[in-house]
Amino acid sequence: MYVARVYVTLRPTVNDPEGLTIRNGLHQLGFDMVRSVRSGKYMEIRLDQDSEEAASASVSEMCGQLLANPVIEDYRFELEQAG
Amino acid sequence: MYVARVYVTLRPTVNDPEGLTIRNGLHQLGFDMVRSVRSGKYMEIRLDQDSEEAASASVSEMCGQLLANPVIEDYRFELEQAG
Repeated sequence: MYVARVYVTLRPTVNDPEGLTIRNGLHQLGFDMVRSVRSGKYMEIRLDQDSEEAASASVSEMCGQLLANPVIEDYRFELEQAG
Repeated sequence: MYVARVYVTLRPTVNDPEGLTIRNGLHQLGFDMVRSVRSGKYMEIRLDQDSEEAASASVSEMCGQLLANPVIEDYRFELEQAG
C-alpha cells in the first residue's frame, strides 16, 4: 500500500480570491508582515499498488482526470510506502 | 522574506465527506485501487521576517487564530527562505 500526498495549486497567472481574502483577514488580525497568500488543495490518498511506478502512474492519471483542473491548476505529489 | 507552506488536515477522528466524495468519484472512474481519501487545505504564505524563528512564531499564531480550526483540524508547515 502507498500513501500519495497530492498538492493542487492555482497556476501563478490565475487570480486567487480565496488567497486574497485570507491575506486580508491576516492583516486585520495584525499580521502586517504577510505579503501574499496562495490557497490550494491537499489530499492524502491511500492506494493498493504493488510498485511505486504503478502507484505513481495511477496518481498522475487521477490528477489529470479528477483531482486537478489542468486549465487553471498545477499539481504535484509525493509517494510513500505504508503498512 | 520567507515562504511558509501550510497544510491543514481534518483530525483523524473527524468525518471527511469531501474525501469520501472524491474516493467515490475515483472508484466510478475505475480507480478501484483507492482505499481512502482525506482532503485538506494547502496555503503558501509569503511573509517579511528577519529570522526563521520569528517567521515560525508568526505562522504558528496565524494557524491558531485563522488558518485552522483547532477543534477539528491539525496543521503543520515548512519554512523556506526566499528572495
